[in-house]
Order: sequence, then structure tokens, then C-alpha cells
Amino acid sequence: MEVPSVDAWLAERRRENTLRVRRVPLDTLREWRTDPETGDLRHRSGRFFTVEGIRIRDSSLEFDAWDQPLVVQPEYGVLGLLLKEVDGRLHGLFQAKVEPGNAGGTQLAPTVQATRSNYTRVHGGLPVPYLDRFLGTTRRRRGRILFDSLQSEQASWFLAKRNRNMAVLLAPGDDVPVLPGHHWVPLDDLGPLLRRDDLVGMDARSVLSGLVAARLPSGPERPHHDDRELLSWFTEAKAGDATVRRRIPLREVRDWVRTPESIHHCEHRHFAVIGVDVEATGREVERWSQPMLAPTGTGVVALLSRRVDGTRHYLVQARSEAGCLDAVEMAPTVQCQPGSYAGLPANRRPAFLGEVLSAPPERILLDTVQSEEGGRFYHARNRYLIVDVGEDFPLDVPDRFAWVTARQLTTLVCYANHLNVQVRTLLTLLGFAAADETAREAEQ
Amino acid sequence: MEVPSVDAWLAERRRENTLRVRRVPLDTLREWRTDPETGDLRHRSGRFFTVEGIRIRDSSLEFDAWDQPLVVQPEYGVLGLLLKEVDGRLHGLFQAKVEPGNAGGTQLAPTVQATRSNYTRVHGGLPVPYLDRFLGTTRRRRGRILFDSLQSEQASWFLAKRNRNMAVLLAPGDDVPVLPGHHWVPLDDLGPLLRRDDLVGMDARSVLSGLVAARLPSGPERPHHDDRELLSWFTEAKAGDATVRRRIPLREVRDWVRTPESIHHCEHRHFAVIGVDVEATGREVERWSQPMLAPTGTGVVALLSRRVDGTRHYLVQARSEAGCLDAVEMAPTVQCQPGSYAGLPANRRPAFLGEVLSAPPERILLDTVQSEEGGRFYHARNRYLIVDVGEDFPLDVPDRFAWVTARQLTTLVCYANHLNVQVRTLLTLLGFAAADETAREAEQ
Repeated sequence: MEVPSVDAWLAERRRENTLRVRRVPLDTLREWRTDPETGDLRHRSGRFFTVEGIRIRDSSLEFDAWDQPLVVQPEYGVLGLLLKEVDGRLHGLFQAKVEPGNAGGTQLAPTVQATRSNYTRVHGGLPVPYLDRFLGTTRRRRGRILFDSLQSEQASWFLAKRNRNMAVLLAPGDDVPVLPGHHWVPLDDLGPLLRRDDLVGMDARSVLSGLVAARLPSGPERPHHDDRELLSWFTEAKAGDATVRRRIPLREVRDWVRTPESIHHCEHRHFAVIGVDVEATGREVERWSQPMLAPTGTGVVALLSRRVDGTRHYLVQARSEAGCLDAVEMAPTVQCQPGSYAGLPANRRPAFLGEVLSAPPERILLDTVQSEEGGRFYHARNRYLIVDVGEDFPLDVPDRFAWVTARQLTTLVCYANHLNVQVRTLLTLLGFAAADETAREAEQ
Repeated sequence: MEVPSVDAWLAERRRENTLRVRRVPLDTLREWRTDPETGDLRHRSGRFFTVEGIRIRDSSLEFDAWDQPLVVQPEYGVLGLLLKEVDGRLHGLFQAKVEPGNAGGTQLAPTVQATRSNYTRVHGGLPVPYLDRFLGTTRRRRGRILFDSLQSEQASWFLAKRNRNMAVLLAPGDDVPVLPGHHWVPLDDLGPLLRRDDLVGMDARSVLSGLVAARLPSGPERPHHDDRELLSWFTEAKAGDATVRRRIPLREVRDWVRTPESIHHCEHRHFAVIGVDVEATGREVERWSQPMLAPTGTGVVALLSRRVDGTRHYLVQARSEAGCLDAVEMAPTVQCQPGSYAGLPANRRPAFLGEVLSAPPERILLDTVQSEEGGRFYHARNRYLIVDVGEDFPLDVPDRFAWVTARQLTTLVCYANHLNVQVRTLLTLLGFAAADETAREAEQ
């Protein structure tokens, strides 16, 4: 389905701003250095991010589980979406943004994406437009806060990275100028945009997950686990997690190979750290080079879903990832790169992956490919699915899984480090792109 | 007010079990070693806990704020309270427990206090009674979970320590044998017990904070900040916190002096690390020695309170402490050891301490001295107060403070690392010991 005003705007932005991205050997990155002692990759200025190592140990088994490289970027940024109401309909002020790692070019981003260095302007630079609508304190900020939470990003690739996700509604009568590169999009139009591949960027999807509550049908629901039980299940998973994380020098990471070209897994599983050279054309010409993390294949990220006593539920898992801030977060039923399991025995393949990949078309409630963050990840794409497994599917699932309702997810997303970024994308998809289906069911 | 059955039981327990505790020089602790390289204190077996150093830096000012010793005990324990309903009244199965650091002797503890080493029995030892009622998964556990959350403990003294706080209600008709040292106490009797000094232990107070919701009047309330605003305020405080924590060897901690006797601050502020020799008499005679953290004086922990549009509110602060897991937690209005500020200029004294200490008696809703954890802290006592400042007190407070309702606190306590242990004690006090007053107000 076309959304003419958005399509015209994006077409124009694509003409105005493009990036030319070339893969280059890691060793040729002009501004990046390999620390002679640790092997860590860091920018000459000390800014941006570093690539270091982490060692994961399972303390209950007392063996080292695995080592891997990890992106370390301790600074919080702000991902802020400005909203206004026009004729009773919410509109979001989106930004058309192109990032070097994006497979599909220009994507929709929140009104503001700013790191702390950006907005405190410690390194000079222009002020970030619209940022004043998000900073300052709750009490003194104009507009009404609808969502404000520190949310994690890919903990398999990042060490405890979080961004502050914010949505602020302009007061009635208040308005802001629309700068080039920005566009008001009715939230009701997001459905068709989210169903297209690689169009709504990860940061936008993450912020939108905080706005799903208002889109759910308001009827009563009967959650399979009440909120206390659900939080208890999560506490149990955290308390029972035996993962011990230790940062190590990148050169000590076992099973990974460094060549002049890249750092990759010895069996070419998971991902590689590569170099890119980027040239931006537009009003200003800018050129830079940087390392990026390039996954070895498209991932599969899926929620199994079924109705329980008339209420639709989704199956989440409590998942420990290398860079988790606090042991585990809730993740989709399936979250993996199937290619990384090639050749491994069936019992080492992720649980429920078979159910997802073999689902007949009429069971697939949603199926779309989305890009992950294009500033650090190169062509990181996941196929996001919601699969209806029907009411014959067992309610009794392994301990690290739990059935939850969409409304329970909308409460959990208000608290930091409960839902990982992949399940937040699925929450946004089911709230904005699959809402019709959910609403239909509620009326049955 | 007397609670005869509890008093008789405690008197008996005091006869059965006592501890003889003697302060001894740190250097004479038999089973404890000072690491020759780092100066850290650790048990010969590697078990229990260590005393290490931490350096706190304020990255926004780029100076080192301070160094201090800190207790490191990464293992989670379970603090579990078993509940049953008798004639429509909830009863809790409390344990009479005496710990070496307790000033007042035997205190009320939850049904179960067990570290992970205890309950996985990696070091042998007897099974922990009642523990089977708390372990296992939500789905397979008998009884109904009323509260289950990882909660932090004194982050000024512990590095990111947490315990799993659990309350489990026995199914109707189910029961457990009452072992020696245990006693069913009606929750309605806790008010008078909590108003006595040093009687209800910290672990019990912490678990009880998860049961306050059901004790609040159910009438409508008008919070000064709705939940979104409140979480936004908390997010702002986390994102704005510029504290950088770095663990350092204990011997590198500046401004602290190590003598054969103890490790203490050069101006004798804050606390000292001391040694104790403990002899337990009871059915088994046991003797051990250990380091303890001994605060230099009694603390003051207080909530300012006022009504806002007819609803009672409490003033909390977003507080950064040395050992915080995630930047800040919500703390009482005032939380300090006034003695540590002696001789310092007024602008370095804690905000609102004056309002607490100068409050006229008729403004004091609650005033009681409570002991902190007696396994690690020696005579750590705080005077807990709730002070009604009246409706002339300004609603506009410094940015790191916020007015919240008791009901908002009961929601926040369900999520890990939102309320620190001191504000949880105050929540328990206002729910169980000051409930009459709150209920009266609701009827006005």
C-alpha cells in the first residue's frame, strides 16, 4: 500500500542525500588504531566506540562458554519522537536518515537521534534541531511525556548499550517548524510502512514500542500469568542465570581470526568486524571510515502466538546475551541467525525455529524484513515474523519461556531492561502493523 | 503495645540462642587474609565476601570524587516469607534470628534467608528448611506468589548487592510444620512490632515492602506526577548521572587508613572496617571471626510528606551511591549519617536534613530506630522518620527530588532496582505501622 506523501518525501530525500559505502580492509581505516597491547580497535580521538573482547563463562558448569568481539559504547543517546495531534489523529515528526550500514538506503528515524557528546557539544558542532523539546526535566519540559525509558540495544553485539527512548506530545496549539529532512507522518499510516522491508529504522521502531498501549483494544483480557507471576518468572530467570561476563583484550578472544581484512569467527559463523569507507553527498560532502559489525546472514526473529481462553498471547523467552546489563532480558520466541547453526546437530538448533520456518502461509500473521541500526551494523537484517500456532499448541513450555499478552508487553516496555530491542520491534509491528487483526479478534 | 505470643516466643528464643561478639583487631582474624598484592580482605576459602576498593569519579567535572572500601558479595540470596490465611487474616512465618552485628539481639527475619551457596549446597551443609517452597519455577511451585523481585541492599556499602525477595501464600488447606525458631505472626500485629526499635530485621522489612499494596486504602488518588512522568523523572536522573565507578585495589583507596585494628576514614567519618570474633551458643556451639563494616554513628533516614490535592505524597530522591548497579535508585528524602557532616559548611549538608531534625513532635508521623543487616554491618542503626511538612511546603523541589504517592511506591517496588533498601523500609513502615493514619486520611 502506498502512502503518497511519505513516498514523495522519501524520494526527494534520496535524491538529496546519499552515501557511497565501500568495504575496505580493517587495517586501512585512516582514523582507527589497533591498540598494540590489547588489540582493541579505537578511534584516534578516543571518541565514538571501541571494539573489545568478552569472555562468557557458565559458572554453574565452571567452563568457559565462548569468547567474542563486542562493540563498547558506554554513552547514552536520546532517541526522541515529537508528536502532535491533528484532527484527533496522532502524527509523528520523522526524519529521513541514511546510515552506512543500511541495506535499503534512506529510512525513517525519530525526530532526534543524538549522542550525549552531540548534545552537550563537547566536541563543538551544530546544535541538534528539536533537541530542546526532549532535554530538561519533566517538570520544566513543554509538551507531555508519553514514553521515556532507557532501552537496551543488541546485547549480542553491544556491551550493555542503551539509549533513552522518548516520545513527547506537543501541547494543543504548540507547533514546531518542519526542517528539511523531517516530515509529519500520521501514526495510522505506519502500518503499511512497517510492512515494507527496510523502511522504518530500528530507532523509530524502538521508540514506537512505547506508544503501542493506546492502540490495543481496551476490552478485558485474561492473561495466562498475572503480572506478579510474570515478574516472578523473570526474577527466577535472572536469579538462576549463571552467566559470568568478563571483558578481555580483543587479541585474547579465542576462535576468532584477525586478518588485515577483518576479524571473523574461525568457522565464519555469527558475524565479522569489517572496515568501510563512507562518502556522503548532500549539502555538505563528508568522508570518513569506520569499523562495522557485519552479520553472516539474515536473522530470524519471531513470536509464536496463540489464543489462551480467548485472549491472544505471545511466547517470549528470558534470554542471556553476551552484553546484557542485568543477566537476561525478555526476547522473542526465536532470535537467531539460522546460518550460524548450519551443520550442527538438531539439539543445538534454537528451540521453536522449526515451528517458525515450517509455518504454512495462513498461519503467518506478519512477515517483514527490517534493518538493525545502520551506524554500527553493516547490512544487519532480520526477518520478523508473528506465527499463529493455534490452540492445540502446548501451553506448557520450557522454563525459560512464558506466554504474555500484548498489554503485558506494553507495561513491561515502560521499565528499563525488560524487553530487548528485537521484541520491542515485534511489539511495534503487532501494535501498528497487525493491529487490524488484533482488533478483529477482540470483537469476536 | 505488647504482642504477647510474639514476645513470649522471642523471649524463649533469646534464652536458646545467643551470640557473644567481641571486637578484635582486623589483623587477628583467623580465617581472613589480606591479599599481598591488592590489600583486599578475603576469606581463606574464597567464600562469603571480600572487602575491596572503589573509586568514584564525576565524569561531568572530570575529577575523582572519592574513594572508599566496599563489600563485594556477588551471589544472590533468597529472602522468602511464607504466608497463610487464617480466619481471613494473613499470617507470616517469621524466624527469630540473631546476627553478630545486631545491636538489639534477636530480630524477626523472613521464613528463609539463604545464599545460593547455602541452597545449592556446594559446600555441603544441611538443607535449608522451607526453601522448597520458594525454589523451582513459578509454574511448578505450590502456593501463590505475591512478590518476587531482586532488590538492592545498601549501595553505599555493598557493590551492586541484591537479594531475591519473595512472598508465597500457601494454598487453602495447605500447611507447613512450625520448626523451632519459627512462629506465625498475624501481619496486623506487625505495626506495634515495627514501632519498637531494632526488632523487625532489615530482610523482613524488605520483603514486607512487597505486601504493602493490599494494605492501602483503595480509594482514588490523584498523584502529583502520573506514572509516565514519574518514570520519565527517573530515566532523566539515570541518563543524567555522570558517576563513573571503577573498582580499585583496597590498598589504593585514598583518604582511608589501615591500622592493625581497622580500616577507617582519615577523619573518622562514614564507617570503619573492623574485626569481630563470634561465639554462638545454642544447640550447636560455633565460633568464627569476620570483618564487619561499622558505621561511625546512627543514621537519619526520613521521608518528608504532605498532602497534594487531598492525596498524601512522599518526597523521594534519585540517589547515586557508590555501589549502585544502574546509576541511581529512588531513596528517601534524607539518608545520611549526620555525624559525617560535622564541621562541614552548611551547603555541604544534605538537603532537607534541617527540616527533619527540627520537626515539631506533632508533625512526626513515625519515628523508630531500625537495624540494618547484622551479618555484614556492625551496629548499623538508622532513625527512620516520616515527617508531615504541611501543605505550605513547596511542591517545587530540586530536580533530583519527586513527590510520589504510597500507591506509586507499591508499583515501583515490584521492579528490580527502583527503590533502595532504606525507602523500602519506610514503605513497610508506612504500610504496616502508619496505616491507621493513612486510612483515616482517606476517609476524610
